[in-house]
Amino acid sequence: MNTITLHPGKDGAGVVRRTVLPGGLRVVTETMPTVRSVAIGMWVGIGSRDEAPEHMGATHFLEHLLFKGTPKRDALEISAAIEGIGGEINAFTAKEYTCYYARVLDEDLPLAIDVLADVVTSSLITEEDVESERGVILEEIAMHDDDPSDVVHEQFSGELYGDTPVGRPILGTVESIGSLTRDRILEYYHRYYLPPHTVVSVAGNVTHEAVVELVATAYERAGALGGDAEPAPPRLSGPGVDSNSGVRVVDRPTEQANLVLGTTGISRTDDRRFALGVFNAALGGGMSSRLFQEIREKRGLAYSAYSYTSQYADTGQFGIYVGCLPSKIDEVLKICKEEIARLLARGITDEEIARGKGQMRGGLVLGLEDTGSRMSRIGKSELVYDRLMPIDEVLGRIEAVTPEEIVEVSHDVLRRPLTLAVIGPYAGKDFSSAIG
Amino acid sequence: MNTITLHPGKDGAGVVRRTVLPGGLRVVTETMPTVRSVAIGMWVGIGSRDEAPEHMGATHFLEHLLFKGTPKRDALEISAAIEGIGGEINAFTAKEYTCYYARVLDEDLPLAIDVLADVVTSSLITEEDVESERGVILEEIAMHDDDPSDVVHEQFSGELYGDTPVGRPILGTVESIGSLTRDRILEYYHRYYLPPHTVVSVAGNVTHEAVVELVATAYERAGALGGDAEPAPPRLSGPGVDSNSGVRVVDRPTEQANLVLGTTGISRTDDRRFALGVFNAALGGGMSSRLFQEIREKRGLAYSAYSYTSQYADTGQFGIYVGCLPSKIDEVLKICKEEIARLLARGITDEEIARGKGQMRGGLVLGLEDTGSRMSRIGKSELVYDRLMPIDEVLGRIEAVTPEEIVEVSHDVLRRPLTLAVIGPYAGKDFSSAIG
Repeated sequence: MNTITLHPGKDGAGVVRRTVLPGGLRVVTETMPTVRSVAIGMWVGIGSRDEAPEHMGATHFLEHLLFKGTPKRDALEISAAIEGIGGEINAFTAKEYTCYYARVLDEDLPLAIDVLADVVTSSLITEEDVESERGVILEEIAMHDDDPSDVVHEQFSGELYGDTPVGRPILGTVESIGSLTRDRILEYYHRYYLPPHTVVSVAGNVTHEAVVELVATAYERAGALGGDAEPAPPRLSGPGVDSNSGVRVVDRPTEQANLVLGTTGISRTDDRRFALGVFNAALGGGMSSRLFQEIREKRGLAYSAYSYTSQYADTGQFGIYVGCLPSKIDEVLKICKEEIARLLARGITDEEIARGKGQMRGGLVLGLEDTGSRMSRIGKSELVYDRLMPIDEVLGRIEAVTPEEIVEVSHDVLRRPLTLAVIGPYAGKDFSSAIG
Repeated sequence: MNTITLHPGKDGAGVVRRTVLPGGLRVVTETMPTVRSVAIGMWVGIGSRDEAPEHMGATHFLEHLLFKGTPKRDALEISAAIEGIGGEINAFTAKEYTCYYARVLDEDLPLAIDVLADVVTSSLITEEDVESERGVILEEIAMHDDDPSDVVHEQFSGELYGDTPVGRPILGTVESIGSLTRDRILEYYHRYYLPPHTVVSVAGNVTHEAVVELVATAYERAGALGGDAEPAPPRLSGPGVDSNSGVRVVDRPTEQANLVLGTTGISRTDDRRFALGVFNAALGGGMSSRLFQEIREKRGLAYSAYSYTSQYADTGQFGIYVGCLPSKIDEVLKICKEEIARLLARGITDEEIARGKGQMRGGLVLGLEDTGSRMSRIGKSELVYDRLMPIDEVLGRIEAVTPEEIVEVSHDVLRRPLTLAVIGPYAGKDFSSAIG
């Protein structure tokens, strides 16, 4: 066993430690001595972008199946174990990782680790479970399809990245889900759900030693401890992603049009991410942002209007989202394009930069008061970064962003070819001028 | 000034104190010495059910307008003041109250109170702001109308309570929003936004004295302090609400059907609310609940299936929600009705009761770790209960629920005439047997 301290914390709070168990399983913990809850995450370094095209949706399908039963517990016993003690248990699948998590009172930590480890290591995945859960996933796809804001973001990714692993939907499609077999899904389980790809992260009123002991015991019981394997390296890069510039219109009789106008952003490890973050906060990060002021406050054209960035190992997205009445879309797109042009010509003001920094700093500090967000930060970091950046260092990096850096990264991003996705009652309407 | 301790707390944490300032303004605080954030809420005892029928949506419209400007700050300055320091500021309107809130670092408490008090006491509400914000609210209505799960809940309320204050939509309708005038909205502002109807609640690393001082200063500066008025009494009852039994179908080409099947529940002060809570947790409160198991785990018929209760001063709702493919709705409704019949015939098991209690207890404790939820608890309690029930007492009441009490309240509720709301591609389909 190999234990190191990733962050010393202060007065016993915020201490982050990491242990590698035999076989490459990592355990990271952060101490929060003043809370009563504890959050536990089991992170597996596989996401939808690791799927072969014909298995689209397999990673997420697998995530569902893990709650269906182990030799020790059936589906009801898995959820009842945690819910009966007032906790919550759930999971999510992203493009580059999958996470199973629970939040319970600190006294229930042993049970929560036992249940999560059981699920992650020992799922049965019977033929019958695959058939029943196929129905559930088709329902989930239908549910997302009924939400125009979900649809427009997914269509934007699809248009931007095309038919590539990063561009494909995490849930898969009705067709791909219909044809996935138990054997195919099992292959992913056996190939990726191994200790070297797994990180257990825990935040709360815990000691590192106790967590390591509990995890080791649970994994040993499952026969998943031991051997010489080393932890898989973090996903610091990817194959690189080509992007397109195009327009995708989904013609649907919605009350509101939904649009995403954007382009590729920067990768998760790009040093310019702090500058892009400040820029994004100022452009569309809140009610005081330029987009919100121009589109909603001054003109009453939308309820929701914001910009966002997202990051992957080798690429990212930068986009503007607006929901507006279908008759207003030309005016909204005109404002978006004018704002982009104005930013390229004149940049953002010192006041906007100061506000953007304040927003990022405050969002970071206020967003890390609960056990769930602390658990996510240390678990995800272990999978996708080569080191855990201390919060003070992140705050320092935000503070140190210069106007020149903002100009550089915003010009780089905003000069890329634009992509537009729209959903609304627009049969035959030509949007090509919006990206020209 | 009249200060009392509502709860003594322990070791300086969880101390709840209440002061009534001259003119009837109440300030309640809860100490949380180990956090860095502070949550501030200004609660006004007016909700959509206080509107005249022809002013439907006025309360929510007013909530929007309060962010548009005061003599001291325009709309940008209001949001920029809070966002620039990394905080958040927002508001929501419910059927029985309206709340303006912010969450900031504790050192920024004075600024946050100053901004919120400015907004609540001194909004300008210009003609121009009314026109611009009318567009925003029409966008918000359109956005909700594009979300089938929002639509079905609102249609259920509308069918259950008919055209009454509790049954009408909080946002109003396109027609009512189109015809609301500035003068009408101002009337609501001047009639209800007065110190006796207002509660300021603050939770975080604060002292009661400092909060009272800051609130008094801000209200004094606004000329809103002083006089003999006493706090308005809590909204412990209402005019009483008649309910209907009926079916409402919204025919729309959604991918999923969404349904709510239910009836009236019990009021917020009904002593049986703890028993109904335990029953509801067991029936449809989580993944281990009966509905989730029967509909999703065993049959794969839905992604989302749950039951819920909601409470008002004089009535409540009890409902089952399911989203499923349109072709599955008859099967899903059959299961719902069978489960209701089974519950009436055989009740729930001791194991389900124990799990339901665990879920309620844990949900309560885990849900009160952040400043926002603590602030909400004490602020809302001041408006709608005659006293603040300590958390330990709530836990005790949950624990003390007997099987007999669950039988009594579940029989009372489940034997009431049912109402069904459905959205989906169902032109001409007859659902009357579902409530028969």
